[in-house]
Amino acid sequence: MMPFLTEKFGNPSSIYSYGRESRLAIENARKTVAKILHAHPAEIFFTSGGTESSNTAITAAVHDLGCRHIISSPLEHHATLHTVEYLNQKGEAALSYVKSGTNGHVDLEDLERILGESGEKCLVTLMHANNEIGNLLDIHAVGEICKKYNAIFHSDTVQTVGHYPFDLRNTPVHFITGAGHKFHGPKGVGILYINENVQIKPMIHGGSQERNMRAGTENLYGIVGFAKALELATERYTEDSMYIGGLKRYMADQLKENIKGVYFNGDTFGESLYTVLNVSFPKTEKSEMILFNLDIKGICASGGSACTSGVDQGSHVIRAINNNPNQVAVRFSFSRHNTREEVDFVVSTLRGLI
Amino acid sequence: MMPFLTEKFGNPSSIYSYGRESRLAIENARKTVAKILHAHPAEIFFTSGGTESSNTAITAAVHDLGCRHIISSPLEHHATLHTVEYLNQKGEAALSYVKSGTNGHVDLEDLERILGESGEKCLVTLMHANNEIGNLLDIHAVGEICKKYNAIFHSDTVQTVGHYPFDLRNTPVHFITGAGHKFHGPKGVGILYINENVQIKPMIHGGSQERNMRAGTENLYGIVGFAKALELATERYTEDSMYIGGLKRYMADQLKENIKGVYFNGDTFGESLYTVLNVSFPKTEKSEMILFNLDIKGICASGGSACTSGVDQGSHVIRAINNNPNQVAVRFSFSRHNTREEVDFVVSTLRGLI
Repeated sequence: MMPFLTEKFGNPSSIYSYGRESRLAIENARKTVAKILHAHPAEIFFTSGGTESSNTAITAAVHDLGCRHIISSPLEHHATLHTVEYLNQKGEAALSYVKSGTNGHVDLEDLERILGESGEKCLVTLMHANNEIGNLLDIHAVGEICKKYNAIFHSDTVQTVGHYPFDLRNTPVHFITGAGHKFHGPKGVGILYINENVQIKPMIHGGSQERNMRAGTENLYGIVGFAKALELATERYTEDSMYIGGLKRYMADQLKENIKGVYFNGDTFGESLYTVLNVSFPKTEKSEMILFNLDIKGICASGGSACTSGVDQGSHVIRAINNNPNQVAVRFSFSRHNTREEVDFVVSTLRGLI
Repeated sequence: MMPFLTEKFGNPSSIYSYGRESRLAIENARKTVAKILHAHPAEIFFTSGGTESSNTAITAAVHDLGCRHIISSPLEHHATLHTVEYLNQKGEAALSYVKSGTNGHVDLEDLERILGESGEKCLVTLMHANNEIGNLLDIHAVGEICKKYNAIFHSDTVQTVGHYPFDLRNTPVHFITGAGHKFHGPKGVGILYINENVQIKPMIHGGSQERNMRAGTENLYGIVGFAKALELATERYTEDSMYIGGLKRYMADQLKENIKGVYFNGDTFGESLYTVLNVSFPKTEKSEMILFNLDIKGICASGGSACTSGVDQGSHVIRAINNNPNQVAVRFSFSRHNTREEVDFVVSTLRGLI
């Protein structure tokens, strides 16, 4: 990113050489991303982040692709939930939520039932991995069901792009999303994959950037950083995913061994992100202040999504799958920068707190 | 920006200390921007750039503030024009364009006539300074007219924030916009000022960032860079504006002296940006390729806005005010990094080309 922050300031949409240099960097970034995800460069659009990407896809499915019925899940991120609720409240689309089991997995039979009963063209929007409990969706299976009912399929893949291999040429999905800061890339930049078989209009109107799909002067360093971070994450995938998954399992084992009454939310040891461990502790006077006390010890953990942590309502995801008032849920996230020693410190701190 | 690109990665919406440090940086940036523009911090919202800011304001005026009639000008940037055209085509608002004179200034009597004849609540969206010809609008006068007719007033101030002093407490405007890269700040970040007397809903739905007004993980370094660049630009305003304005006048004088038939578009020596000089040259076989030839000599100039330069239709602004088929228009822009020697080189190159 540094050359573009210190020397190469050309506006990528300018026609002179100073701008063409920036344009080239963006188009190379697009090719890198496309190659890694096994998509065509023309299917990759740079945005300001995952939230904008999901908003664009969902809104376009309703406005441009004729979807009059949205099918989603109460476990989705607010970037999806608040967008589908907005469109529903405006009367632009009906809205149904698919059931999920207590393990947090979407009930695919219920999805098929809703699709079968709907008289409208449907948009199915279901996330690839839940950001709080880590559950992974079988997007191939969902995509095949969507195909059968001629539905549009959008998947919020913000938790998995940069963490799992993608083969979009062989994945029946119309839209996926990504955010740079989820895999050690920059904040403020994301992608929207739009399958070449669908044609939508932009959500943000103006200049002809991103082939008329996303107006506004391009976030040059962000785009370059996104591609580079994705490249590094991909190179390190095998090694990092094993190492990080090992930390997660180690922490789960240590917690079970050391703290009575711990409970894991989601399909923790099944189809689940290797980066997230969501733990419920028995509610006590001490555990109610658990996040506060962990913070004092320099341990960064969260009760829900960072995107909602200003709001003191607990997690909508945990409430939906495990509404046990006698438990307090904490999400621990792992990266390649974490160590077993850190896990030991967290577990011993937790033992002191509970 | 560097600490936030190299060390301080906390998500500003996280509750732990690592995130609070980022949050503090954003809130300090907001205070800096508010102080410089003489606004309240609660009126400043960070976005991905000027285009998103204008889209948000215009769309909200129609969706949330009851505006059923938009009044704009054909000389606006596409971020405004394409947004108002979109809303008009969707049947959400009527659309009128204010006349302007051949000097490029908006005809305020015509604006008042349209407002007076409209039976609807109006949104007036007129830019503070034209990005191609440099004309400055009297936003105080327009704001007073809007007040009289109870209209909402949005001004695209992307060309002037960072280049002119603002006193928003004493300016009758509901929305203004800014973009970091217009004053040596980073790309991919902007602001939307929303006057405290209007309440709107977000355009991008999701998390509760920016006090529920703009969802998505914050572009931390961009926000910090925006505020710092605005601070530096403000400190240097007197010195830089005199120096840059001197370069513009010098170039105009040199062009008149050295090239026959040059013509200046807009109110070049009156109410005009000190940063932009828009020149029409007599059309000849050579001058039709003028941008191409300037580029070969390492001179960066443009035919219109960078946001449209992929599109080979010439400038919609120049067409609107000076539709002379025997002239070729070129926009020259100046910054504090330019010199008189560079101007001399450009003028002598142009003499060779014409």
